[in-house]
Amino acid sequence: MGRHTIDFPAWLDDRVQHIETVLDQFLPPVTAVPPTLHEAMRYAVLGGGKRIRAALVYAAGEASLQSGTAASAQEIALDHAAAAVELIHAYSLVHDDLPCMDDDELRRGRPTAHVKFGVANAMLAGDALQPLAFELLGLMPIAPALIVQATQLLARSAGSLGMVGGQAIDCASVGLALSGEELKLMHSMKTGAMLEASVLLGGIVAGAGSAVRQGLEAYAAAIGLAFQVVDDILDVTADTATLGKTAGKDAAENKPTYVSIMGMDGSRDLLQSLHAQAHAALLPLGPSAAHLASIADYIVGRDR
Amino acid sequence: MGRHTIDFPAWLDDRVQHIETVLDQFLPPVTAVPPTLHEAMRYAVLGGGKRIRAALVYAAGEASLQSGTAASAQEIALDHAAAAVELIHAYSLVHDDLPCMDDDELRRGRPTAHVKFGVANAMLAGDALQPLAFELLGLMPIAPALIVQATQLLARSAGSLGMVGGQAIDCASVGLALSGEELKLMHSMKTGAMLEASVLLGGIVAGAGSAVRQGLEAYAAAIGLAFQVVDDILDVTADTATLGKTAGKDAAENKPTYVSIMGMDGSRDLLQSLHAQAHAALLPLGPSAAHLASIADYIVGRDR
Repeated sequence: MGRHTIDFPAWLDDRVQHIETVLDQFLPPVTAVPPTLHEAMRYAVLGGGKRIRAALVYAAGEASLQSGTAASAQEIALDHAAAAVELIHAYSLVHDDLPCMDDDELRRGRPTAHVKFGVANAMLAGDALQPLAFELLGLMPIAPALIVQATQLLARSAGSLGMVGGQAIDCASVGLALSGEELKLMHSMKTGAMLEASVLLGGIVAGAGSAVRQGLEAYAAAIGLAFQVVDDILDVTADTATLGKTAGKDAAENKPTYVSIMGMDGSRDLLQSLHAQAHAALLPLGPSAAHLASIADYIVGRDR
Repeated sequence: MGRHTIDFPAWLDDRVQHIETVLDQFLPPVTAVPPTLHEAMRYAVLGGGKRIRAALVYAAGEASLQSGTAASAQEIALDHAAAAVELIHAYSLVHDDLPCMDDDELRRGRPTAHVKFGVANAMLAGDALQPLAFELLGLMPIAPALIVQATQLLARSAGSLGMVGGQAIDCASVGLALSGEELKLMHSMKTGAMLEASVLLGGIVAGAGSAVRQGLEAYAAAIGLAFQVVDDILDVTADTATLGKTAGKDAAENKPTYVSIMGMDGSRDLLQSLHAQAHAALLPLGPSAAHLASIADYIVGRDR
């Protein structure tokens, strides 16, 4: 797993390629009945994406494992957990892109799933990715009690008090003036919940004790929010080709964003503060948290 | 739990009322943010439905419990499992009714969720009901290893090789001539998988041994299929007011059904044979399976 690699870009590349292989293996083949549904599921999940959630699972796993332990079961379990969060993320994008939601035609530089497979197949593909995520957690070769903890966390983070709740607030707020607090709540649910779950899942699966879990939680809260602030900044500053999705869409739809509420300078100040919080939270975890620290830098500095 | 009640209608009434209370408690309140999403989730789940899946969980639990054991933990666990299958069923109906799928405006005699709350909220409500089902399984007060078994079963039964896969085949087959075998596969996935899961979940939660599980599996396979044959017959013979949903819809849309493929007589013969298979499978389980037997009779004899 390259736990002591200092070359972060190489480590991230390795993890991105690895999770692609893992997802390819875990998704049913296109030959399985019904083939079009499985093709749509694979299209939605494979072939792109930053894989930040998977990287967070792996990096949090590294930060939590006791050094020197034979970690093969945990490594397999981390693959399952990383795949599970990527499946939930992929399903949420498919549904978010549908005509009844954001009505997006471009995702990761390709036609969205419903453009390629039709709305019904896209919706059903999303519906089927969700239980597959829970199935993968159930197949982890670790103590059943830890599996149950992981399942609970994923379920809460993906549900009406987490990711889906945030999407519902987002939908309902188009054209409305949200306060900074309301905006923060929306994003902490819509994007933050699953980013945080990714970090904590890595910790649970690798057997993190309560001190490490506490550090992971503080780190996760900071990067969860930072991620969305960057997204809002990029929606203004980047172009569609770089983003791989339609730029300027939030402003065009009069959606509240950090930039629209706090201004560009205010948003960048907030981002710096969150970045510092993330690093501070990792200090007690020592050098095994190096990749988590690098992911925080990566999230803050990304241009797409 | 009335394990020795012989009055089946009274037992079923009791279970239907009980699961309504249980679901009401398990669903987030409408005061939780976002309120409209939670209102839509509660609308989709509460206030109607035959609750056959919940009844199957309870009846299979009764058939699997050792008589005389203090069963309070199992009773709580059965509530969670029964609620979980009803949540999955409710979400599937909400998504199935959407304009991109069956485009139904009536369900259980009321406007469908998207008619009442809009398409986006209805889709998101379905999306959020699914993880809630897995969360409830994770909260069962039984051995974690049994929770993991239950989670795996629910995930597989609700996924692309189960319920959602069946819906995808159903969508893709409108206007096509399916063979009897193809139709059977579609229904065994679309409806059968979750009915079977309900029976087996009751067994897992109540600690059924392998002999009992074998009987439950054979029973479940028979009633899963029987349920759909009855549905197809009712689509032809019943009226909209009795059904609480639009009658004659399958024929109008040229959807393949048992009646369209085997004819009404052939369908009724098949139904009788499945009914007999269900009863035969329960014989080794003895008198504690009485309610499972009555549910088989109920499924075959229902008029809505």
